[in-house]
Amino acid sequence: MSQVDNAVVSAHLSHVRIVMVNTTLPANIGSALRAMKTMGLSKLVLVAPKTYPHPDINALAAGAVDLIEQIEIVATLEDAIKDCHLVFGTSARSRTIPWPLLDARPAAEKSMQAVVKDQQEIAIVFGREDRGLTNEELAMANYHVTIPVNTDYGVLNVAQAIQVICYEMRMAAMAFVEQKENPEASMPVTETESMHWDEPLVTHEQMEQFYPHIEKMLAEIEFMDPKNPRLLPLRLRRLFGRIQLDRMEYHLLRGIFTRVQAMNNGTWKKSVDKTTDSSEDQPHA
Amino acid sequence: MSQVDNAVVSAHLSHVRIVMVNTTLPANIGSALRAMKTMGLSKLVLVAPKTYPHPDINALAAGAVDLIEQIEIVATLEDAIKDCHLVFGTSARSRTIPWPLLDARPAAEKSMQAVVKDQQEIAIVFGREDRGLTNEELAMANYHVTIPVNTDYGVLNVAQAIQVICYEMRMAAMAFVEQKENPEASMPVTETESMHWDEPLVTHEQMEQFYPHIEKMLAEIEFMDPKNPRLLPLRLRRLFGRIQLDRMEYHLLRGIFTRVQAMNNGTWKKSVDKTTDSSEDQPHA
Repeated sequence: MSQVDNAVVSAHLSHVRIVMVNTTLPANIGSALRAMKTMGLSKLVLVAPKTYPHPDINALAAGAVDLIEQIEIVATLEDAIKDCHLVFGTSARSRTIPWPLLDARPAAEKSMQAVVKDQQEIAIVFGREDRGLTNEELAMANYHVTIPVNTDYGVLNVAQAIQVICYEMRMAAMAFVEQKENPEASMPVTETESMHWDEPLVTHEQMEQFYPHIEKMLAEIEFMDPKNPRLLPLRLRRLFGRIQLDRMEYHLLRGIFTRVQAMNNGTWKKSVDKTTDSSEDQPHA
Repeated sequence: MSQVDNAVVSAHLSHVRIVMVNTTLPANIGSALRAMKTMGLSKLVLVAPKTYPHPDINALAAGAVDLIEQIEIVATLEDAIKDCHLVFGTSARSRTIPWPLLDARPAAEKSMQAVVKDQQEIAIVFGREDRGLTNEELAMANYHVTIPVNTDYGVLNVAQAIQVICYEMRMAAMAFVEQKENPEASMPVTETESMHWDEPLVTHEQMEQFYPHIEKMLAEIEFMDPKNPRLLPLRLRRLFGRIQLDRMEYHLLRGIFTRVQAMNNGTWKKSVDKTTDSSEDQPHA
């Protein structure tokens, strides 16, 4: 039985927002609010809802009326997630490009870790009742999240999916609070973060050819001084080390480095007919 | 991602029955069937339902009509559970007599252990919409099971509770099957989360400036055809989306893109004397 501090759990969960895109049925919004409140979540963002406001929302939300007042309505998914650090797109089917995909449980654990350790803002994005999220919307997510279902009949509706996700969020939040309150309790973080990937991940050995390549390229374009590289090589290793490149990405990046090198030493020249406008410089900030 | 044998999972779950006592709303029966089928459970027993049959059951059950045909109607809870080995009574509040009480997750694990190791029959008993199970009914259970909720608002309805229990049953069944199929299982992936990070991670909004920048740079060096970029933009999003750049890395990468652009359009030229200290040209290290 869970005897953790409910207020602390709710505080963690306040960093997790549920985003519903183009929802048609008001009853689903009401059910979502009820599921959220029951599990301690409080922030619902509606992206261009089809029917809002509507009495069915209030009816289905039951006692969760305070959450109705906090609903945020935005025009685009972009607006809903722009201040988020970690965005999960819910997806029932596999798409053209497999994305980092987590089951609901490890996704919730990852989210709570990001909240508790780094005060990150998390969004879980749910799509339309009939056709989910578009590929463009799914591409805005860091991860896709899926709820394991009977593969012969995988038809969770959006309210049920929100129920399960909110439940897993609460379970993960409680585990973190429990862990803090009682550090000797073993952390029940399941390490089932196995991903389904279309390309094999590159090996350490291949990466040991990658780092000299990017460093050589950066030295050639005088972005890095090879005599005094300071922390740059280390930062590059940390960055690309945690990304776990797959074979395709590896060759893509090395291809870019090679192009830059060839451009720099004059062995490759731009085509005369230049269609790209490169006049304005994009400041980075 | 879960790649276990769906049929084996369903076979295990066929030993777990959902029992609903004196249900009033047919919609709750329909929702229960849908939740069950989605998670791979198949056996529903109704103890003296108030309204049965009813078209709302079929409407809410959606594609789970085959489960409707298998519904068993009995007069008493006793009849519903007599051939069961392990009976869980669902209970929101604590009762006068303390009972062995498990959260949904350990209850599901215990159930699946009983099924897989000892071929036991399991019942999860849900009470009336308005007042749950009586003390007499709860006393028929081996264990009470509860779903951890926001203690300020603990009002899961019976359909939502069934959804969560069925989900945990499936998760537990899958874990058993996975373990059996691949005892050395669980491939660990990216472990960025265990790191304490020195720099804040960038937001989704900042990343939405990052992608146009890298794409523009790649177009300028003619690595990508902006008129026909194919899967490249998507691959870049997938790659940098899962990395969660920190602020320093973000500026480092954008600095590299800007240097490449400047080199390409001639606004930056290599220094003549390669031995010159170029630390001023090293903006981010």
